[in-house]
Amino acid sequence: MLYLIGLGLDLKDISLKAVEALTKCSKVYLEIYTTALPYKKAALEKLIGKKVTIAVRETVENNSKEFVKEAKKKNVALLVYGDPLAATTHISLLQEAKKLKVPVKVLHNSSVFSAISETGLQLYKFGKTTSIPKWQKDYKPTSFFRTIEENLSIGAHSLVLVDIGLNIEEALHELNEASQGKISNIIVCSRLGTDEQYIVYSTLKELLKNKKIQLQVKEPFCFIIPAPLHFTEAEFLELF
Amino acid sequence: MLYLIGLGLDLKDISLKAVEALTKCSKVYLEIYTTALPYKKAALEKLIGKKVTIAVRETVENNSKEFVKEAKKKNVALLVYGDPLAATTHISLLQEAKKLKVPVKVLHNSSVFSAISETGLQLYKFGKTTSIPKWQKDYKPTSFFRTIEENLSIGAHSLVLVDIGLNIEEALHELNEASQGKISNIIVCSRLGTDEQYIVYSTLKELLKNKKIQLQVKEPFCFIIPAPLHFTEAEFLELF
Repeated sequence: MLYLIGLGLDLKDISLKAVEALTKCSKVYLEIYTTALPYKKAALEKLIGKKVTIAVRETVENNSKEFVKEAKKKNVALLVYGDPLAATTHISLLQEAKKLKVPVKVLHNSSVFSAISETGLQLYKFGKTTSIPKWQKDYKPTSFFRTIEENLSIGAHSLVLVDIGLNIEEALHELNEASQGKISNIIVCSRLGTDEQYIVYSTLKELLKNKKIQLQVKEPFCFIIPAPLHFTEAEFLELF
Repeated sequence: MLYLIGLGLDLKDISLKAVEALTKCSKVYLEIYTTALPYKKAALEKLIGKKVTIAVRETVENNSKEFVKEAKKKNVALLVYGDPLAATTHISLLQEAKKLKVPVKVLHNSSVFSAISETGLQLYKFGKTTSIPKWQKDYKPTSFFRTIEENLSIGAHSLVLVDIGLNIEEALHELNEASQGKISNIIVCSRLGTDEQYIVYSTLKELLKNKKIQLQVKEPFCFIIPAPLHFTEAEFLELF
């Protein structure tokens, strides 16, 4: 059996069902290539009472067949920060498992997709999600901004994820370049669902120059570009 | 302290953090007016080792001030199926608590917003969420369909929630009336994230007349109206 287990957003967000499943597993992998964890691997190992093997993209994605095959003979768990299927990359594991007739159990958990409700914005009003890729010297795609514009055209908020390895300053810079002055207010959410949760609502212009705010933003973080606000949303955002 | 605790989708989806918080609470409420639970209250009480008081809308929403006040003197928990802030109604509790200076902790959990990834559709491609209200004899709003059309205009999938008290037959009927032949394929998801999970991908026309499928759909359930599919999404949907 292959268990795809969501860790949720904080160390102790793991579910009773997951803890139970882990007792049956002889191998436990931890996926760390799609998101940065807000806690140490050792703390997780202590909590679940199991040694955890770091899974790199090479193992899980590029050799997904081999990875899934291991779960044919024994119980294997892949721990994923947030919800295990929020990233499309893990959906392909389900398909691989179907092909190889390996049974899979998915254990969902909280993720950034629900925790953004902490901003007071209505989850119902979020449109498509996009993400800011790390720009290379000669490859600087701005197409992620098109999704934001599409969402704005139907009055939908945009959740903007930020690729791993991109710091707040770089991410704000890329957003600024791509948007070419077309957006004003943004929300930055850092470490949602943890005791270190930090939310700031400001203008992109202000955030670009405010190093003090930037220093308070830790991984994982994301942006929200709000569409026109309902008055209860506006009222709530004033708190940040 | 007021704890807003997400129960996730299945009985044992409750987190270690939540179990820990509950040991500190002298009063535990269970919210059952926004979603139908797929398990019995008694099973939950046994699991957490606490008596649970059913919270009706009258108590939490209409008398939110009184409700929050109770948490001024003691630790009170409100258990909510799924994620506690997914429904806007609980965001207003946060605001009330701020006004009354009652500290609040939100413990997120999995919800239908992430579990729809079980369909193989990319979470990134979901647009705004809408819900089908229970029609009254002389009030039959179809405006929820506008959101689906807006989403389709930008190539986004639509998650369509179904109001509590509406059975599958009624919900399909309302969707059919409101859409006036403008949609073909739909996905029905029943009891996502539980062992009874049931997903069906078919045409609205077929589902309307297929009583055998309808009988397999239990509360809670939701619909998804897919936008044009990526080939990996199409491939995955063929499994259902």
